[in-house]
Amino acid sequence: MLMSELAARTSVPVPTIKYYLREGVLMPGRASSATRAHYDDGHVRRIALIRALSTRGLSMAQIKSIVGLIDEPGESLFATMGAATAALPPRTEFVSDHDCPRARGALAAVDYAVPEGLPAVAQLEHALADAEAAGVPMTEERLRAYAPHIKSIAAYDIAQMPLEPAADAVEYAVLGTVLYEPILAALRRIAHAGLAAERLADSAADIHGG
Amino acid sequence: MLMSELAARTSVPVPTIKYYLREGVLMPGRASSATRAHYDDGHVRRIALIRALSTRGLSMAQIKSIVGLIDEPGESLFATMGAATAALPPRTEFVSDHDCPRARGALAAVDYAVPEGLPAVAQLEHALADAEAAGVPMTEERLRAYAPHIKSIAAYDIAQMPLEPAADAVEYAVLGTVLYEPILAALRRIAHAGLAAERLADSAADIHGG
Repeated sequence: MLMSELAARTSVPVPTIKYYLREGVLMPGRASSATRAHYDDGHVRRIALIRALSTRGLSMAQIKSIVGLIDEPGESLFATMGAATAALPPRTEFVSDHDCPRARGALAAVDYAVPEGLPAVAQLEHALADAEAAGVPMTEERLRAYAPHIKSIAAYDIAQMPLEPAADAVEYAVLGTVLYEPILAALRRIAHAGLAAERLADSAADIHGG
Repeated sequence: MLMSELAARTSVPVPTIKYYLREGVLMPGRASSATRAHYDDGHVRRIALIRALSTRGLSMAQIKSIVGLIDEPGESLFATMGAATAALPPRTEFVSDHDCPRARGALAAVDYAVPEGLPAVAQLEHALADAEAAGVPMTEERLRAYAPHIKSIAAYDIAQMPLEPAADAVEYAVLGTVLYEPILAALRRIAHAGLAAERLADSAADIHGG
């Protein structure tokens, strides 16, 4: 397709597409003349990835670094996926695992295997510290209630991950992390509402019915 | 405790505490003279709530409306909890359930009981639309894999909810929603890393070992 069609397919204006090309986050089309190039589904998908990251507040520099890891995954796929997902929000100051006492305690309690130097550990530390500061610290009981369910969800995610080509694996890790998190959060809120309605109805029945 | 001690306990400066008092989000202390008032653990907890909401980007007006619902829960506890959690980020334009075709389809597929007019349904619709636009639409299979686990997590949350006084129930709903979401997201990312390491090691063994 031509650039005008690519713009229509993605709902992204031509000047923005040209900006992505200049920044090198969108790969060049196949040139058919000095002024015409053809684009394909790979370009549609890449633009969708850029939009997904930019609506989540990532800067062009951050998007570039993630796209760079997808385009050149490097020797270790695991290290590349780690680096790409580490670049996703929320941004946490890099801290060593040693500086994450709450997270280390929590992860030990729920028997999670934790690779060294994972930024999500710092993210967990901050989230646990916030809950503590607000007077609703995460209890070990709550953690044990949550952990196996989160692990089952993650196990499904990882089982579905394409391993080849490496670019697909990295892209899956990036998109799966940023796009399914809000879906999971919304589902939890919806489930809360349904279950709270049930519990409140039961409690009203206890009071008025017994 | 005096205001200076309250500031020390909460790590919130005295001028900020005075601002909270002026805005009416922090309840007044017990006056012991024209210029002295005493504060208690309820004030510490309220300040923590205000901080938790403000670091998540809520404006003072939004915090006021949530605090107002905690202080005066109204006739229906369920409606009050719904209104309070609806004020939490992410902000979604109000839309009727009728305008959420993806969310309605998804929720029907996983057998979630959904109260009418729940903002989280619009939040789910947006999240599903984002995933679709990025070329990784939520499949019904993935939804069915996630849904029972999220429901189990929500069931634990709701079972722990205090029902009285109503203020505690509303505060629990607000804090539990905003503070445990990032914990769940971090746990999922950590579980991903552990499981991806395992799967990649297995796959390397398949290639090199067989």
